[in-house]
Amino acid sequence: MRRGLSVAGLGALENEAELIRLAGKHGFRTVDVNAHWLIGQFGTEKARALLAENGVEIGSIGLPVDWRTTEETFLDGMKILGEHAAAARALGCTRCCTYILPSTDYPSAHFMAVATRRLRACAQLLGVYGIRFGLEFVGPHHLRTRWSNPFIWTMEETLDWIGAIGEGNVGLLLDAYHWHTNGLKAADIEALRPEQIVHVHLNDAPDVPVEQALDNARLYPGEGVIDLTGFLRALRKIGYDGPVAQEILTQEPPTGTPEALARHSQACFDQVFGAAGF
Amino acid sequence: MRRGLSVAGLGALENEAELIRLAGKHGFRTVDVNAHWLIGQFGTEKARALLAENGVEIGSIGLPVDWRTTEETFLDGMKILGEHAAAARALGCTRCCTYILPSTDYPSAHFMAVATRRLRACAQLLGVYGIRFGLEFVGPHHLRTRWSNPFIWTMEETLDWIGAIGEGNVGLLLDAYHWHTNGLKAADIEALRPEQIVHVHLNDAPDVPVEQALDNARLYPGEGVIDLTGFLRALRKIGYDGPVAQEILTQEPPTGTPEALARHSQACFDQVFGAAGF
Amino acid sequence: MRRGLSVAGLGALENEAELIRLAGKHGFRTVDVNAHWLIGQFGTEKARALLAENGVEIGSIGLPVDWRTTEETFLDGMKILGEHAAAARALGCTRCCTYILPSTDYPSAHFMAVATRRLRACAQLLGVYGIRFGLEFVGPHHLRTRWSNPFIWTMEETLDWIGAIGEGNVGLLLDAYHWHTNGLKAADIEALRPEQIVHVHLNDAPDVPVEQALDNARLYPGEGVIDLTGFLRALRKIGYDGPVAQEILTQEPPTGTPEALARHSQACFDQVFGAAGF
Amino acid sequence: MRRGLSVAGLGALENEAELIRLAGKHGFRTVDVNAHWLIGQFGTEKARALLAENGVEIGSIGLPVDWRTTEETFLDGMKILGEHAAAARALGCTRCCTYILPSTDYPSAHFMAVATRRLRACAQLLGVYGIRFGLEFVGPHHLRTRWSNPFIWTMEETLDWIGAIGEGNVGLLLDAYHWHTNGLKAADIEALRPEQIVHVHLNDAPDVPVEQALDNARLYPGEGVIDLTGFLRALRKIGYDGPVAQEILTQEPPTGTPEALARHSQACFDQVFGAAGF
Repeated sequence: MRRGLSVAGLGALENEAELIRLAGKHGFRTVDVNAHWLIGQFGTEKARALLAENGVEIGSIGLPVDWRTTEETFLDGMKILGEHAAAARALGCTRCCTYILPSTDYPSAHFMAVATRRLRACAQLLGVYGIRFGLEFVGPHHLRTRWSNPFIWTMEETLDWIGAIGEGNVGLLLDAYHWHTNGLKAADIEALRPEQIVHVHLNDAPDVPVEQALDNARLYPGEGVIDLTGFLRALRKIGYDGPVAQEILTQEPPTGTPEALARHSQACFDQVFGAAGF
Repeated sequence: MRRGLSVAGLGALENEAELIRLAGKHGFRTVDVNAHWLIGQFGTEKARALLAENGVEIGSIGLPVDWRTTEETFLDGMKILGEHAAAARALGCTRCCTYILPSTDYPSAHFMAVATRRLRACAQLLGVYGIRFGLEFVGPHHLRTRWSNPFIWTMEETLDWIGAIGEGNVGLLLDAYHWHTNGLKAADIEALRPEQIVHVHLNDAPDVPVEQALDNARLYPGEGVIDLTGFLRALRKIGYDGPVAQEILTQEPPTGTPEALARHSQACFDQVFGAAGF
Repeated sequence: MRRGLSVAGLGALENEAELIRLAGKHGFRTVDVNAHWLIGQFGTEKARALLAENGVEIGSIGLPVDWRTTEETFLDGMKILGEHAAAARALGCTRCCTYILPSTDYPSAHFMAVATRRLRACAQLLGVYGIRFGLEFVGPHHLRTRWSNPFIWTMEETLDWIGAIGEGNVGLLLDAYHWHTNGLKAADIEALRPEQIVHVHLNDAPDVPVEQALDNARLYPGEGVIDLTGFLRALRKIGYDGPVAQEILTQEPPTGTPEALARHSQACFDQVFGAAGF
Repeated sequence: MRRGLSVAGLGALENEAELIRLAGKHGFRTVDVNAHWLIGQFGTEKARALLAENGVEIGSIGLPVDWRTTEETFLDGMKILGEHAAAARALGCTRCCTYILPSTDYPSAHFMAVATRRLRACAQLLGVYGIRFGLEFVGPHHLRTRWSNPFIWTMEETLDWIGAIGEGNVGLLLDAYHWHTNGLKAADIEALRPEQIVHVHLNDAPDVPVEQALDNARLYPGEGVIDLTGFLRALRKIGYDGPVAQEILTQEPPTGTPEALARHSQACFDQVFGAAGF
């Protein structure tokens, strides 16, 4: 497993180049950034150099396609997915992720059919560039009724959806917060094969009943109540060796400079990885 | 278009061999029967001869796989699908159909994901044997709330589902009753390409508000209020040239001998096809 | 069937806008042009207007992906396929075509495997935009040994390849010259379902033994020995209603202005369509 | 990695039940047997008990479908594949394998297209039952010209073919003999992800130039010149933890009772696994 950073939890970063520098400086090995933006900003060679000089690789890019609303919006996104996938490949990145909202204003079954077709299209084009596609189930209970109709939020449902999408390069983005808010245990991770996990998010939850944990009330790893030792050990036990990237979603931006927040993140990772014995 | 018969509406048939004889005798060109049963009963050569002597072909077999409940039930069905598909092929049949209940006791979105995977598996194995797979949307309003959660029932949703299934041999079973109870018009048929329609059911509806038309209160073609002239003309206009098979679902079995019911069906088909001008 | 023009046979056209004007002026209803170029040149609205004012639609775009050489070349092409497909869709075009060379310098079986994966990727992305993908088998005998190893060149092999690609939106581009040089007959067309044909090319062959007909020695329709009456009647008989586009490949550019060549093409189409009785 | 036995190398076994007993007795943990035969012979419960009592699991079943000749033969095989896959699943087996002959009497490219469609169909139906599908490339040089046209025989080509088949449950059967006769090294294994390997065969080659090693002149592990230490260490290094099953193909049946041959196999496995340090 490789420690990773995302922008979520680093405060007012100037841009993702700063994230790369802070990640490298503070012991992180991967960053979740926009490869296409990096290449647009610096060119392929300099973008590669920026990553290499800081000793980091791109853990995952975000999916630049909005598959949740109209067909036209989806098709607009698909136009640029090839460029984004090619940029990721050019910078050595092999992962792309998206999240699944647990409810929807569309009728549930119909939306599932449409979304299955759309995500398969994304998976197929990503696969052309050797990129795996991670789907993040989202656990917080308040989001299950946030929109009119229930969608899916459990790991089991998401695995079934991956089966429905039916492309070999699709797997889970496993986020500690959603694992926690779904009431999952280490055994649920241990039931997975490592190649079923594309990417991992690390964060922590406040000491409230699980049903009340808000999606944007996340804490830094080790500052909350999630059994991150069990989480990390289970991942190691099954042989997962990809990125474990911090993602701290909060209502207000965290206080402190990006530098201070990166240092804090490093300390948090040191603690929870240490507690897990590695 | 070729006139077809199914067992639904023929009363107390001894077996499907009798259906074949009655269909041939009364001017029908196709029958919806179980090809696997026919071959088991008569052997391939005699089954072929029975069809040929009566001047009929098999319009469609039914799907021998229950994809609506547990995984074990589904897997049990898949074991025999190859034999059924091979039997259909041996008797020259190129269609297999199943229907979609408009509601379900499973969570809607999750069930859609699971059912998509299952129906794709069916479509793939049927495709190996050159068989197209027709999905019948089911319109009656009372079935939309018959089980706990809404599923899908419109033609549009079904076309989207076919896209999600993603196999080239999947299309619609278009049933006049479901077309009627969905409030569809000739223009909705005219918007289709003929290869999107795998099979067609013909029947009629009582003179009640569309919302009150019960699934098992169907009438013989021409005896009710459905615009079958518009229905048939639209099918011909787009170039559909497959079977149009009678399917009369009723609460009580129809009165009369199979022979009399087949004669009645012939008269009904003569009337509605004549009214449509062909 | 709709008469169509391509640049091949029109001489020194300034650009494809001129082709559109000439096509409209001379009774053609479709043009094979680069939709992406058109939109880049004129903007979507003016490109639509240019087509509409001249009474033509785009019959097919060419595939902007080179799938025949290295993986890097293929991936470069895939980056822009989404934009090209979106442009085609924006201009109402639903077809994209590529041709298959009958021999290759790569080992035959391995190249077939690689090309299957690549063309499936193209088909999938085109399908996202509602575009069908036509594969043109290439019949001239001299090309079968032009490169080191035989590939495929018959209609039957191409249909099998389409089965291997396994996407529902893939079909044949049927070119009269390749139909002729493969020794095919009207019955071979009549054995097809219309949806198996994505696009059609019309041209003629010199009066030489079929084995000696060169790929770039084509004549205008009606000026050679191909049974174009049988060809067109078979297409109509099965219900093909898509474009039939002229494509005249020659060693030297044809003499005459584009205007004169378009007029000549119109006369040729009038003759062969007239001879076929429509 | 778990040591496994197949019938190839055990001499005149009465049946596969004897193989199961010998495997258990001599320290093997998996057997490659016909699950469908086992259940037919003993019933599901007794077949499970037979495996459990002998402390073995089924490593892989063989593919009961002949995909190398006519379409009718292929379709006959597909009819029973569901039953075989269900039997494998019922006995806890998750692998099915087939081998690829390096040459063919069919035209190479066309055969590749047809075989791609056929193997995809197999993979899809196996996948329904949670079974992975292993393709074994075959290295011996004499087989490359045994039939009229070259097909494929390298690991690289096979990986490309797996890409063309395009189903997530397809991977390699890696056989030490074919690894050797293809001139592959430990580094070639180390370049794989473990989930790309479905199954492994272990055996050895006589001390002849690689070009002269005959497919049916195989030796027991450790009795020949293959670098089995490098082979096994590379497999362990990448995290492969599936079966490693002995397969000794010889012109004449090996001398000795099945009991003696099983004991000998055990000694050979002890030696090569010991030499590899595990």
